[in-house]
Amino acid sequence: MQLYIGNQNYSTWSLRAWLIFSEFNLDVEIIKLRLFSDDFYTTLEPINPAAKVPTLVDQGTAVWDSLAILEYINEQYLDGLAWPKDINQRAKARSIAAEMHSGFNDLRNELPMNIRATRGVELSEGARKDIARIEQIWAEQSELHWGEWLFGEWSIADAMFAPVALRFQTYGIELSAAAKAYQQKVLASASMQRWIQEASLETEVVVEDEAGEPLE
Amino acid sequence: MQLYIGNQNYSTWSLRAWLIFSEFNLDVEIIKLRLFSDDFYTTLEPINPAAKVPTLVDQGTAVWDSLAILEYINEQYLDGLAWPKDINQRAKARSIAAEMHSGFNDLRNELPMNIRATRGVELSEGARKDIARIEQIWAEQSELHWGEWLFGEWSIADAMFAPVALRFQTYGIELSAAAKAYQQKVLASASMQRWIQEASLETEVVVEDEAGEPLE
Ligand SMILES: N[C@@H](CCC(=O)N[C@@H](CS)C(=O)NCC(=O)O)C(=O)O
Ligand SMILES: N[C@@H](CCC(=O)N[C@@H](CS)C(=O)NCC(=O)O)C(=O)O
Repeated sequence: MQLYIGNQNYSTWSLRAWLIFSEFNLDVEIIKLRLFSDDFYTTLEPINPAAKVPTLVDQGTAVWDSLAILEYINEQYLDGLAWPKDINQRAKARSIAAEMHSGFNDLRNELPMNIRATRGVELSEGARKDIARIEQIWAEQSELHWGEWLFGEWSIADAMFAPVALRFQTYGIELSAAAKAYQQKVLASASMQRWIQEASLETEVVVEDEAGEPLE
Repeated sequence: MQLYIGNQNYSTWSLRAWLIFSEFNLDVEIIKLRLFSDDFYTTLEPINPAAKVPTLVDQGTAVWDSLAILEYINEQYLDGLAWPKDINQRAKARSIAAEMHSGFNDLRNELPMNIRATRGVELSEGARKDIARIEQIWAEQSELHWGEWLFGEWSIADAMFAPVALRFQTYGIELSAAAKAYQQKVLASASMQRWIQEASLETEVVVEDEAGEPLE
C-alpha cells in the first residue's frame, strides 16, 4: 500500500488518514508531496482525479478522502476494530466524525494547522462557535473516559479530531479541564509525537496556510 | 425511528438521509422542522447538540449528520446492502461519497438547492470546477452503468449526489450526454418524485437559500 500525503506541518487531512496506519502498525509506504506544487498534481491526477491528499493505493485500487480511507482500512484490515464495538457508541462516534468531516469551516479557514508555529488570531463568531462545539464534544467524552481516547479505545473519531488538538496549541485556545485532558492525551501519544517530529524537520512554507501573528 | 428533516425545498442533507429510508422502504416517522425557526432549535438541541438536520432517533439513540445516518442504517438494518458488495467498488463509492460530503463548497454556496425555482446565476471559477468534477464522476460511472445508479444498484453514493441533480436543473447547468443520463435517472426515480412533490407543497421562503435571478 502507498499513502500519498502532503506537508506534515500543514496537511490536516493527511494526518487523519495516516493515524490509522500508525495506531495499528500497518505496513504502508508514505509518499510525501509538496502541497500545491506541480509535482503534487502530476503525481496525483493519474491516480485520483480529485487530485487531493490523502490518497491511498492498495493493489491498484485508489481510495481517496480521509474518511473513505479510514473506513476502507477499518473494513479491509482491522475487522471493524477502529470503531467502537457497541452499535450505539459506534453511531455516536460516526456522528461526531462525520460532523467534523463536513463542518467547522470557520475554524478551518481561520486556524489552519501549522504545527511548528505559535500564533495569535482574531476569531470570528463562527470560529468561536466551532471551538465551543468541539470543546463540548471533547469534554463530554472526557468525562466518560478521562485520560483515554474519545470512546475509550482509539477510534476513527480520534483521527478526525487530531488536527484540532494541534491547532488549539498553535493558536493558544484555552480549554476546560475536561477538554484539555483529551487534548493532552492526543498530543502526548506516540503517533502524534512522531508526526510532530517529522513536521518539525520540514522547511517549506505554504503561504495559503499561514495565518495570525507570531507570538513572542 | 424518527427522522428530523428541514424544509424539503431547501434541505439537501435531509434529502440525502431520507433517501435510504425511501429506497429500502424502511419504517420511519418523518418530523419536518422549519429551517432556522425557533422551534427548529428548541426541538433539536436536547436531542442533538449539533442542532442540525438530518437527525435520526432510533430507540433512544441519536445519530446525526447525513453520512453517519446512512452508514448506521446500512449496518443496522440493511446488512451492508447500501454499498456495493465488491470491496474495490465499495472503496470507490465511499471515496466519491466522502468527497461530496466534505467538499464542493462553492457549488453549495452559489447554487443552493431550491427545488421549485428556475434561476440563472453567475458562476465563480471555483463553482465551475466543482461542476466539472461532478460531471466527470457522473459520466465515468454512467459509461459503466448507463441508465442505472452510479454503481448499478442504488447506493449511498447516489444519496450523496441526489441534491446536485436538482441543483443542476434549477440553475440550468448543461451536462454531457453521459452525465445527463444519470441526472435524468435520479430525477425520474420514485423517491425523488415523491420528495419533489412534497417540496412543491411547501410555501415557506428561506431567504438564506435563495440565489440567482428568476428565469422566464
Ligand atoms: N475531503 C478531503 C479533503 C482533502 C483536502 O482538501 N486535502 C488538501 C490538503 S490537506 C489538498 O489536497 N489540497 C490540494 C488542492 O486542493 O489542490 C479529505 O477528507 O481527504
Ligand atoms: N454535515 C451535516 C450538515 C447538516 C446541515 O448543515 N444541515 C442544515 C440544513 S441542510 C442545518 O441543519 N442548518 C441549520 C443550522 O445550521 O443552524 C450533514 O451531513 O448532515
